[in-house]
Amino acid sequence: MAQGKWTVYLSGEIHTGWREEIVEGAEAAGLGVEFLSPITDHDSSDDCGAAILGEEPDSFWRDNKGAKVNAIRTRTLIDRSDVVVVRFGDKYRQWNAAFDAGYASAKGKSIIIIHDPSLGHALKEVDGAALAVAEKPSQVVQILDYAINGRLAN
Amino acid sequence: MAQGKWTVYLSGEIHTGWREEIVEGAEAAGLGVEFLSPITDHDSSDDCGAAILGEEPDSFWRDNKGAKVNAIRTRTLIDRSDVVVVRFGDKYRQWNAAFDAGYASAKGKSIIIIHDPSLGHALKEVDGAALAVAEKPSQVVQILDYAINGRLAN
Amino acid sequence: MAQGKWTVYLSGEIHTGWREEIVEGAEAAGLGVEFLSPITDHDSSDDCGAAILGEEPDSFWRDNKGAKVNAIRTRTLIDRSDVVVVRFGDKYRQWNAAFDAGYASAKGKSIIIIHDPSLGHALKEVDGAALAVAEKPSQVVQILDYAINGRLAN
Amino acid sequence: MAQGKWTVYLSGEIHTGWREEIVEGAEAAGLGVEFLSPITDHDSSDDCGAAILGEEPDSFWRDNKGAKVNAIRTRTLIDRSDVVVVRFGDKYRQWNAAFDAGYASAKGKSIIIIHDPSLGHALKEVDGAALAVAEKPSQVVQILDYAINGRLAN
Amino acid sequence: MAQGKWTVYLSGEIHTGWREEIVEGAEAAGLGVEFLSPITDHDSSDDCGAAILGEEPDSFWRDNKGAKVNAIRTRTLIDRSDVVVVRFGDKYRQWNAAFDAGYASAKGKSIIIIHDPSLGHALKEVDGAALAVAEKPSQVVQILDYAINGRLAN
Amino acid sequence: MAQGKWTVYLSGEIHTGWREEIVEGAEAAGLGVEFLSPITDHDSSDDCGAAILGEEPDSFWRDNKGAKVNAIRTRTLIDRSDVVVVRFGDKYRQWNAAFDAGYASAKGKSIIIIHDPSLGHALKEVDGAALAVAEKPSQVVQILDYAINGRLAN
Amino acid sequence: MAQGKWTVYLSGEIHTGWREEIVEGAEAAGLGVEFLSPITDHDSSDDCGAAILGEEPDSFWRDNKGAKVNAIRTRTLIDRSDVVVVRFGDKYRQWNAAFDAGYASAKGKSIIIIHDPSLGHALKEVDGAALAVAEKPSQVVQILDYAINGRLAN
Amino acid sequence: MAQGKWTVYLSGEIHTGWREEIVEGAEAAGLGVEFLSPITDHDSSDDCGAAILGEEPDSFWRDNKGAKVNAIRTRTLIDRSDVVVVRFGDKYRQWNAAFDAGYASAKGKSIIIIHDPSLGHALKEVDGAALAVAEKPSQVVQILDYAINGRLAN
Repeated sequence: MAQGKWTVYLSGEIHTGWREEIVEGAEAAGLGVEFLSPITDHDSSDDCGAAILGEEPDSFWRDNKGAKVNAIRTRTLIDRSDVVVVRFGDKYRQWNAAFDAGYASAKGKSIIIIHDPSLGHALKEVDGAALAVAEKPSQVVQILDYAINGRLAN
Repeated sequence: MAQGKWTVYLSGEIHTGWREEIVEGAEAAGLGVEFLSPITDHDSSDDCGAAILGEEPDSFWRDNKGAKVNAIRTRTLIDRSDVVVVRFGDKYRQWNAAFDAGYASAKGKSIIIIHDPSLGHALKEVDGAALAVAEKPSQVVQILDYAINGRLAN
Repeated sequence: MAQGKWTVYLSGEIHTGWREEIVEGAEAAGLGVEFLSPITDHDSSDDCGAAILGEEPDSFWRDNKGAKVNAIRTRTLIDRSDVVVVRFGDKYRQWNAAFDAGYASAKGKSIIIIHDPSLGHALKEVDGAALAVAEKPSQVVQILDYAINGRLAN
Repeated sequence: MAQGKWTVYLSGEIHTGWREEIVEGAEAAGLGVEFLSPITDHDSSDDCGAAILGEEPDSFWRDNKGAKVNAIRTRTLIDRSDVVVVRFGDKYRQWNAAFDAGYASAKGKSIIIIHDPSLGHALKEVDGAALAVAEKPSQVVQILDYAINGRLAN
Repeated sequence: MAQGKWTVYLSGEIHTGWREEIVEGAEAAGLGVEFLSPITDHDSSDDCGAAILGEEPDSFWRDNKGAKVNAIRTRTLIDRSDVVVVRFGDKYRQWNAAFDAGYASAKGKSIIIIHDPSLGHALKEVDGAALAVAEKPSQVVQILDYAINGRLAN
Repeated sequence: MAQGKWTVYLSGEIHTGWREEIVEGAEAAGLGVEFLSPITDHDSSDDCGAAILGEEPDSFWRDNKGAKVNAIRTRTLIDRSDVVVVRFGDKYRQWNAAFDAGYASAKGKSIIIIHDPSLGHALKEVDGAALAVAEKPSQVVQILDYAINGRLAN
Repeated sequence: MAQGKWTVYLSGEIHTGWREEIVEGAEAAGLGVEFLSPITDHDSSDDCGAAILGEEPDSFWRDNKGAKVNAIRTRTLIDRSDVVVVRFGDKYRQWNAAFDAGYASAKGKSIIIIHDPSLGHALKEVDGAALAVAEKPSQVVQILDYAINGRLAN
Repeated sequence: MAQGKWTVYLSGEIHTGWREEIVEGAEAAGLGVEFLSPITDHDSSDDCGAAILGEEPDSFWRDNKGAKVNAIRTRTLIDRSDVVVVRFGDKYRQWNAAFDAGYASAKGKSIIIIHDPSLGHALKEVDGAALAVAEKPSQVVQILDYAINGRLAN
């Protein structure tokens, strides 16, 4: 039976290689998933608005310009995804990750959250909106392999 | 005139080969339908949450974890279907089949129900939301052949 | 701060007095909730189509007529509810209850399921779509009292 | 000309009296706004799931139960609001606040964010989705007074 | 248990007193339904566009102007209805009645059709989208009485 | 600049070759449009329900069965169309054509109506919901050629 | 028969007393319409952002702040309207009026445009999305009187 | 990681070569974007209704016919776009451009506005609904290159 074509958005933490782990794991498993993500280069993400549309002396508006240029990408790609994976790390406030989770939830996307168990209490509302809460990227690959192919490793 | 590409989700009873009958019948008729379905391996479907995300001592949460991992597949695939076929057998409670029918109905999908006439009274609300109520898988193939190609066997 | 006006639909099992327990409990707690429900008189529910629109010799169409007349009520009232409570008993197939749960889920309603723990495995997909799984009607009153007023009994 | 009836949800930080400031300011200005909010009692919010539906030995499920019972209130009330105000304080991770902002954004609500300017960079994506970014509760009262009555203090 | 407030739109044939029969029957039964309808004065309905916005020499545009002014009423009132009743008579083409039925169907309204059995074959697609097909206005009153109050006459 | 891929549903009158005229005209103009339509074989359309799902002694239910099987096709194909063309002839009541127009209108489709000017008054509400009212199939080809390629014949 | 409660938003030109003419005409006719509008005080509308949220040295951001504070009112009130009336005058660019018309059109509102015939060619796309194009405020009162009460002045 | 396929609609001013600048810039950057646009030939756009559907003596109806034929293209193409770019020039009223911006905003599209800074105050409501406000077509190419590929020119 056909498995269709899956599109998965990888939101959240940008300082470790978790996205690559998932992408490579999915490739190794032959899942054929289309992975999407925000721009994960921190400097580009901060500077894009000012760099393209003109520098701003006021940091609020500099950030505002940049955040909106990034939103062109993030909203478009979340809207076309079947599954939205959001990873929370132990550093930084990561409010944009939680924002994406809320946005994806209201859009009816299937949500998978990845975080260390130590963050569980602080993330309980976000986890409560998810269909799966994982600790490691490899578990996301396993979930996708199961959801798409029904394969369950022993 | 073009017939487009049809996507059909096959929900419900997993202990007989009715899905294969439909898929093979559609193939024999050259319908070119993309068939989707839940994971039909009972054990995998029960175990997937615990196997991937960690074992649970409490059966309620073990089931809850598994049901949600399965929902990643079922919601995604029902959402992208044109037609949702739901078969009810004479054993088990099959509440997930009825849940899928309600979900598909609220999403505006065309619904076809398959069941033995003896189950008619118990299924009257579900049948009432369907565009067709069949007894045999071969009738679903005929409906699809008619809906897609206008072919009506004599 | 205002608590707004809540509308709660009570779906499912019709052979015990659980609806009255919830309505009376809510009244005793002064919750001011508007409770809605399907027609719970079994005979009326079976006969309404034939009684109003004409008798049918074929039981399938008799049921079909009745199920659709009932759907005028159930769809309308579920659509205007904030919360949908569905109770499953230990008798009968109750496919319409599961259908309502799926319908409500796709419509984005908050779902509360009531059932005996012994039914947990069979209801895991339905429970997985719920925001609360209770065993007793009194717990639903407590949930509503908390959701509306923030009151938590000691 | 009529000003209609406005419903405003106050999400986020629960450790200072900012909600009361807004409610009292709106009352003093005679705005007639219906204010809604999550349960702001920290302990109740943590305990509600376990207290009503049964204690849980595992903290993840204890939190999960509670988060979902709270979601019955928060989703319902955000869904019926015209404006969603989200305040971020300088303590705690407040991921549920950012989640609410994302959820409200996807639902097309008008969003007002309140935070200290020092949090601006970390909140740039959230601010980018807002129609107003304020520093003080009194500014929210002024915005509502202007939006509803067109009054602008000199 | 509360019965809520029902809004019912009465579309279609304007040359007999069927609307009054339903309204009076509902009043006699104390149903408290809010009934809405198109403008049923044939001449006003034809002339409204030209009378208000200026006469038109070309009959196509005269009709176009009028049809759109009427649509301000019909779309608004159908959109706010729970149930849409459409009656087909044995004269005239009544394409606007069938249009309303299609419009209401796509908007997810509960549809009740009234017509003489002799029109059944010609109306089969319209009837197929309805939750009830009646012959007489009094049956609509009975359906509403049942749907709202659960009352079934013996 | 890209012209995208257009999907056009051809609803209504089935006794003349207007669909072929449009399809051939579009082919001659190289428009690359995907044309969809209902089953236009009158007998098949009447018999499909009974032929596939079992004969019915009562003509109402025989029609009902058939109308719903046809609806599997018509709803699915209208839902995936950009433009819905509906032709009204001078014979028969054609209520299903008007139903399709209303359905398509509520779904936000671009509507083109084809009819003889003599039917204008009776079709004024349907025409009022259309973006173009044509008399001949060749005009529909010209509209599509213009809408897709900007070509306007001299 | 009930006429329901109508809500009408009056968008566009703010330098003449057309809104008052409509409101007073509707009152004289006893229509009971709830009229909504943007803030029509030009200075307040320009200054609100800076006055409430802090002055801005850069005129672009000053305008941006103000436009968004105004949007809290305009989006909320258009969203809750049945009918949106947009008047274009002969001065200024009035892009916000045309923006409101496009916004209202996509939201499925009934649109009435008022303008001098001399502006017809420039407004053809906007007029094309309207259900009525009037020249004078009194015509809007007549349309509302007809739509609500079926009254047509001789 | 995949970048998906982007669809961008170019609305507004038709008297300069800004669309070609964007299309060529995107091609040079290898973006693979599908660009869509209205018919930009002024005469065709004015004449299409009359040319295809018949000449009209009254200029209002001539314009009305043409505007609606153009709407078949514009609505369809905006609806299938991810990003809508709207350019305002310094001549003409360009109400259709502002209408498109409002329409796109209500449909949840990402909006980019291009205009000379001198038009900023008049366009403040339109700019306020945009995710980016540019002055030159080349900036739109840069935004798309960043949104799609994360590339930021130094």
